[in-house]
Amino acid sequence: MAGVDPGRVLNDLQELARRTGGAGGAKRLAWTDGWRHARRLLRERLGEIGLACDEDEAGNLWATLPGVSSERLVLGSHLDSVPAGGPLDGALGVFAALEVLRALAEADEFPATTVALVDWADEEGARFGHSLFGSSAVTRALDPDAVRELVDADGNGLAPVLADHGVDLDRIGTELESGLAEAFAYLELHIEQGPVLEAEGVPVAAVSGTVGVERFTLRFEGAAAHAGSTPMEMRADALLAAAATALEVEAIARRHGGRGTTGTLEVRPGALTVVPASAELGVDLRHEAAEELESMRTEVLAAAAGFAAGRGCRVEETAIWSAVPTAFDPDLVERVRVAAAAAGGREAPLPSGALHDATMVARVLPTAMVFCPSRGGISHSPEEHTDEADIRAAVAVFGEVALELASGGVGCALPSRRRRTK
Amino acid sequence: MAGVDPGRVLNDLQELARRTGGAGGAKRLAWTDGWRHARRLLRERLGEIGLACDEDEAGNLWATLPGVSSERLVLGSHLDSVPAGGPLDGALGVFAALEVLRALAEADEFPATTVALVDWADEEGARFGHSLFGSSAVTRALDPDAVRELVDADGNGLAPVLADHGVDLDRIGTELESGLAEAFAYLELHIEQGPVLEAEGVPVAAVSGTVGVERFTLRFEGAAAHAGSTPMEMRADALLAAAATALEVEAIARRHGGRGTTGTLEVRPGALTVVPASAELGVDLRHEAAEELESMRTEVLAAAAGFAAGRGCRVEETAIWSAVPTAFDPDLVERVRVAAAAAGGREAPLPSGALHDATMVARVLPTAMVFCPSRGGISHSPEEHTDEADIRAAVAVFGEVALELASGGVGCALPSRRRRTK
Repeated sequence: MAGVDPGRVLNDLQELARRTGGAGGAKRLAWTDGWRHARRLLRERLGEIGLACDEDEAGNLWATLPGVSSERLVLGSHLDSVPAGGPLDGALGVFAALEVLRALAEADEFPATTVALVDWADEEGARFGHSLFGSSAVTRALDPDAVRELVDADGNGLAPVLADHGVDLDRIGTELESGLAEAFAYLELHIEQGPVLEAEGVPVAAVSGTVGVERFTLRFEGAAAHAGSTPMEMRADALLAAAATALEVEAIARRHGGRGTTGTLEVRPGALTVVPASAELGVDLRHEAAEELESMRTEVLAAAAGFAAGRGCRVEETAIWSAVPTAFDPDLVERVRVAAAAAGGREAPLPSGALHDATMVARVLPTAMVFCPSRGGISHSPEEHTDEADIRAAVAVFGEVALELASGGVGCALPSRRRRTK
Repeated sequence: MAGVDPGRVLNDLQELARRTGGAGGAKRLAWTDGWRHARRLLRERLGEIGLACDEDEAGNLWATLPGVSSERLVLGSHLDSVPAGGPLDGALGVFAALEVLRALAEADEFPATTVALVDWADEEGARFGHSLFGSSAVTRALDPDAVRELVDADGNGLAPVLADHGVDLDRIGTELESGLAEAFAYLELHIEQGPVLEAEGVPVAAVSGTVGVERFTLRFEGAAAHAGSTPMEMRADALLAAAATALEVEAIARRHGGRGTTGTLEVRPGALTVVPASAELGVDLRHEAAEELESMRTEVLAAAAGFAAGRGCRVEETAIWSAVPTAFDPDLVERVRVAAAAAGGREAPLPSGALHDATMVARVLPTAMVFCPSRGGISHSPEEHTDEADIRAAVAVFGEVALELASGGVGCALPSRRRRTK
């Protein structure tokens, strides 16, 4: 059979942008009409190859192309976007999956395995603050009670908005039939959302897994004092304790080969003539290795305590969120790596610093991802862009690995069916 | 003649607190009824010794006790407070000046010189943002056009509010007859508003002058980036450039024996998962020596430029305000120093890190100040406090020097009449 045609994916993305994009960026926020419009295009394209769609209890959209075996390869990503989002984040992976189904549908024979496309619901969490909604639900990682009371910026509750889209939170917990049943592998193409591939000048890479995250705030408490009349040695300046800690977060991240970001810093009382009484620093630490991540966190807390004590301040940590590192399936990652390298892509797999639906799926199923470059590392913005040649190369690699898996493999056996638990 | 009686000053302050204080702190905001109530008490007390008050074109309140010579000693401070202010800031100096007039009025003879009390209008600038209003007007440092458009938090304009209090901005510029005409010296008692005297355990000190101030913001511009997917070495983190600069401001201030404060830091976009694109740091530098202050500023700007460049950021300075250092009159300062030291106070004069009406007056007249301790260095707060024994000691020193000057001096001649220009 013929391979995939990346040109058709580019055409689909153009049509998607025509319907849901424009000057203000992508308007495909989950649980809105813009998202419905995007899904309508997907339904139309699936209809053209004779495939119908089903939505599961969590709002995920599925289409299935039967194969000789009922064992299923699952391909997917997400059509939802942040407000004023980019043209490729999520959508590229969905239409690349569609293209695999199209190529298989045009072939003379059924594929060896069944192949399913999934468009995960509300990956971004941009409206209600809970990302990876649909993939969390399917992998039983979502607690309906933990999200029931969420409201959007306009005060709309999550539960009634979901009900408008035919999703019942209670049925997610009890009746969801997972489209992952009988699946043996999950594959997802996504833009990198970082600057590494562009800087290296490569069009495509395998992804080794997603990093673990420790996210917390450090609240430093010192004492307000008059900027003019308080000698330097009689101060307890909370901002300076936080500033020293922010610089140390960077040093610790570099030392461990991870990432450490201090994206927020709020100073009180925040007056030019008053020594800051308090400063709250937001910290986000990431690493692919759990033990390294834990060491980073320990070192940051020790540094904060030391800087606070040295200035007569106190410091208190408040945990915000954490996620354990997720390594993708070594065999699948190796398949992608070989295909990517052969296409002029990166020799070594790249860890993903962002979470993806694949992070959730990897908890229950052998999983791998394909990355293509993001210009300037920019995503979640109308500026988001990947050169057409890179999109073509990445879709080709994704298609090659997917078709190989669907055909029972060329030179390598199907991955054994494994299920992981958290 | 007898000296001053500090107990009467304590009684006056108690009565002032009864009328304009309370649980929420002092309520003597300039150009409000609370301020009028405070001035009414002062008028009553002056009336008890047969003195009437005049308000000049800038709203300053004057009372004059005639002497043998028409050359005048001027004593004063301010009755206005910040909202929820302390019981002593300004008021202590006004009622100490009143006590000098009382002591002179009770004497059998006219004093050698005329003695005037002044309650400066709107020292704090807490309502319209322009401090030292009345003393600036009298010393011709106030440009009426520069304040004409000021509004308070409720949208009231300065000009109509002043008109309600009989003050016409245009007359300030053209018709103000200065109460400082024929003055040969100005003396002011004030709380320190800093922690030095308390820490040293002394009740009173002479003030050598007020520091110069350089106040500006530094806006660092880097690049927003994804906290997870952007390697540490590919970032342009504006917050970290600002953090390094804040720590260097402290180091520079220590090195020069001045004061350096970074009281504000605003981070954009201010999200936990985004490397900061911009950070605006507020800097306040102070020193008694103009050349040291200029060196501090130069070093801070060089450090900021270096930290920005090292991180691929840009930095831009915006000047906010500056004031040149003001040294008080050496002869007058020495008189106060001798009297303070003899009363168990500080041997050496202390520079004031805050500005005072005396800073303005010193531009045109030999000036000195007396400080007493502030518990915890706290002012502009209902917590503001000075122990009664320290108030007694400071009022006694202030009274001793004032009466000596009014009597033509004991063992030291009157300061020669000098006028300084800026």
